[in-house]
Amino acid sequence: MHKLLIVGTVAFDAIETPFGKTDKILGGAATYIGLAASQFKADAAIVSVVGGDFPKKYLDLLVQRNIDISALEVVENGKTFFWSGKYKNDLNSRDTLDTQLNVLADFNPKVPESFKNAGIVMLGNLHPAVQNSVIDQMTTEPELIILDTMNFWMDNTLEELKKVIAKVDVITINDEEARQLTGEYSLVVAARKIQAMGPKYVVIKKGEHGALLFHKEQIFFAPALPLESVFDPTGAGDTFAGGFAGFLSKTNNLSFENMKNAVIYGSTLASFCVEKFGTERMQTLTFKELNMRLQQFKSLTQFEIELT
Amino acid sequence: MHKLLIVGTVAFDAIETPFGKTDKILGGAATYIGLAASQFKADAAIVSVVGGDFPKKYLDLLVQRNIDISALEVVENGKTFFWSGKYKNDLNSRDTLDTQLNVLADFNPKVPESFKNAGIVMLGNLHPAVQNSVIDQMTTEPELIILDTMNFWMDNTLEELKKVIAKVDVITINDEEARQLTGEYSLVVAARKIQAMGPKYVVIKKGEHGALLFHKEQIFFAPALPLESVFDPTGAGDTFAGGFAGFLSKTNNLSFENMKNAVIYGSTLASFCVEKFGTERMQTLTFKELNMRLQQFKSLTQFEIELT
Repeated sequence: MHKLLIVGTVAFDAIETPFGKTDKILGGAATYIGLAASQFKADAAIVSVVGGDFPKKYLDLLVQRNIDISALEVVENGKTFFWSGKYKNDLNSRDTLDTQLNVLADFNPKVPESFKNAGIVMLGNLHPAVQNSVIDQMTTEPELIILDTMNFWMDNTLEELKKVIAKVDVITINDEEARQLTGEYSLVVAARKIQAMGPKYVVIKKGEHGALLFHKEQIFFAPALPLESVFDPTGAGDTFAGGFAGFLSKTNNLSFENMKNAVIYGSTLASFCVEKFGTERMQTLTFKELNMRLQQFKSLTQFEIELT
Repeated sequence: MHKLLIVGTVAFDAIETPFGKTDKILGGAATYIGLAASQFKADAAIVSVVGGDFPKKYLDLLVQRNIDISALEVVENGKTFFWSGKYKNDLNSRDTLDTQLNVLADFNPKVPESFKNAGIVMLGNLHPAVQNSVIDQMTTEPELIILDTMNFWMDNTLEELKKVIAKVDVITINDEEARQLTGEYSLVVAARKIQAMGPKYVVIKKGEHGALLFHKEQIFFAPALPLESVFDPTGAGDTFAGGFAGFLSKTNNLSFENMKNAVIYGSTLASFCVEKFGTERMQTLTFKELNMRLQQFKSLTQFEIELT
């Protein structure tokens, strides 16, 4: 098993979907990543920051999942990062209603000593300067650095982002972001251009249309599980990334074949995440349920053609 | 091997994509279906109608593929159905520039005697009254009736369409049409409602996002092959349907497991269709090329997780 170092936001979210709305609930990229990775009993630590307003019960939740939070800084006189958004009727797009950086504005990440030799580093969506600082603090070169990012950083800090992209092994972004980053409409061409920027593996997330894994001339595709209803898509991408990183950290096998499995586990975990508001479903999910749904993924995608 | 009876348009298309435009070229649902099914050396006949302006070389092309055209009526003093369309830059949507029904306006289909006992009937996109007439002319109940249709008939002849839907075993429509037909956004729920209307099998085509096959509580998904470039999407849906029907006609096995394979072959054939204008690529495609690309589909979708 590889140690898994996670950096990303730990936050409050207020979410509105066609099915209801929440007050401030637990959110943040590192939270979703950590909860997903904990399904694999990953030896994980989160580097992040919250304010004095962050409930102890949320911290306890992470600790119960065996996540090291010694580098989850609590700024007692500060406020936790807050995001608020409202989804449109088809749940495929959303408007951001409010973003309050709060303690995140001056965040200076500190990697715990015991994780400076982590085998896998998962850089959750965050300012590229923070992601870069985490890479720089590693004393041993990680086996695998995985980067998640979004269009906001492409719009505002593209040069810093490109420096991070050049240092990572895997990047996970969505289809529109892949197109924005490369100026290419074809995802096949976009993935090739992104590989030329650094990452040997490119994961393009297409939401309800699944995810593609590219490596050299190889392509693997995992659909999203067709669901009767999607309740709240918040955190699905982070959950995917957390499942991907957690599975690789557990299995200690970084071959393309095993990354296919990591993509499948990531997709399976994401299919649970969207069933309830925020992290709610991920808090109750058992590994047995996860493996039962994995069987559904198999029957959804596997076939046996005898060539004729 | 089942006999395969195909009904659908045989037509002229004029197509404009971001990559170029054509004059009147060979098109029509039955044409694409027939060309795709011919890859499986199906014992097939086309029921359709063209005008005296339809070139003999196009008829010869179908005959060379071993397709019975004795019921492809030629109205000497009439003009062939003509459709003209222009694709938008992303190739995912198009505007119809012109539709001239011509000989199709008074088409009265006549099923050849030797195909009135066909095991598989493929009802290509056409007026539901014509599709219904073909079903009524069968003297033996077909093993499988497959229906392709589109939103135009839902808008204009919904009640007649529903009568056909009630009689068929498989329906293939796209995602937007499935939503229109049922008023349900979730494709899982839509597919269940469509099954209640008659078809035991529902195929929902999602274009570049692949295709879903539903039967009772079972779901199978085939992605579209990620391509460097799509040149012209015209006929991709018909080619999918033709591959689906042709494979089932050859293998003589109508189990759900074998329908999965039919969906995979349909998707593989469609991935060739879009590489050139109109039927161009389907005219040169060999069965060897088809099976080589099938291997790409396998590596794209197949995985081997050992549960842990």
